[in-house]
Amino acid sequence: MDEPADDEVPVEGLAFDAAGLVPVVVQQHDTGEVLMLAWADAAALQRTLELGEAVYYSRSRAEQWHKGATSGNTQRVVGVRADCDADVVLYLVDQGGDGVACHTGARSCFHRTLQGAPRLTRSPPSAAVPALTPEPTSPESHS
Amino acid sequence: MDEPADDEVPVEGLAFDAAGLVPVVVQQHDTGEVLMLAWADAAALQRTLELGEAVYYSRSRAEQWHKGATSGNTQRVVGVRADCDADVVLYLVDQGGDGVACHTGARSCFHRTLQGAPRLTRSPPSAAVPALTPEPTSPESHS
Repeated sequence: MDEPADDEVPVEGLAFDAAGLVPVVVQQHDTGEVLMLAWADAAALQRTLELGEAVYYSRSRAEQWHKGATSGNTQRVVGVRADCDADVVLYLVDQGGDGVACHTGARSCFHRTLQGAPRLTRSPPSAAVPALTPEPTSPESHS
Repeated sequence: MDEPADDEVPVEGLAFDAAGLVPVVVQQHDTGEVLMLAWADAAALQRTLELGEAVYYSRSRAEQWHKGATSGNTQRVVGVRADCDADVVLYLVDQGGDGVACHTGARSCFHRTLQGAPRLTRSPPSAAVPALTPEPTSPESHS
C-alpha cells in the first residue's frame, strides 16, 4: 500500500555515454558470481527485456550481440538493476548452455589476478568468487 | 609443482581505454553483493595495491579518489581480479565504515530496477542481490 514503489528507471532514462552505451555487469543470480562485464545500447537493453535473454552491444564488431546465439551459452535474465546514477546496469542472469560465460571456456571472465594484489585465503561462501581452477582449455585453444 | 600458475596481469599489462581508465566492478568478497562500479587509472590501481584499500579515479572530479577518506566508508581490498581481455578489473572488498557503498546511503549502488525487467521472485542465497528494502534516506536527502 504505502510501501515505497521500487525506484524504476526506464531504458530512455539511463545515462548513456558519448557512444550511446552503458556498462553492464553480469552476475549469476543465485550464486553471486560476477561472470563478465559487457556494454549495451538502448536497443540491446530493449531487446533483452523482450527476449528475456541477455543482449549486448559488441564494441569490437559494432553490432548487437545476443549472447549465446551461436555458442548456446545464452543467459536467461531474471532481473535488471540500474545504479544510483543510472549510468551502469546489472543483469542478474542464469548462465545457460555449458554454464560458461567467458569465450576462453572459463565460467567467469574474471579468472586472472592483478599482480601484487592480496590473495583471498579462503573461498567466499556462495562461490561468489570461483577459485582459480585449471582451465579446461589449453593456451592454444584460446585463439 | 606443475600446478598452473595463476594467470597474473601486471597493472601495466591492463588494456586501459582512450582515457587511460578501466572499469572496476566492486564486490563484497564474502556475500557476493555487487556494490558499485567505478573507474581506475594505473595510478589508482597502484595506490590500491599499496594501501590495501580501494582507490579509484573520479571522472567527474578528474582526480584520484580514495573511497571513504572523508566518509569513513573505506573498502579493504582482499583481492583484485582482471578479466580475460584485461580491460575490466574486479575489486573484492570488505565494505567498511557503515557498510554503505553508495553515496545515497544504500548498501549497494544497484538499488534501482530497469522498467520492464522481470522481477526476482525470491532472494538469492548469500544476499548477493539485496532486496529492494526501503532506503534509510528520503528522496530529499538524495540531492
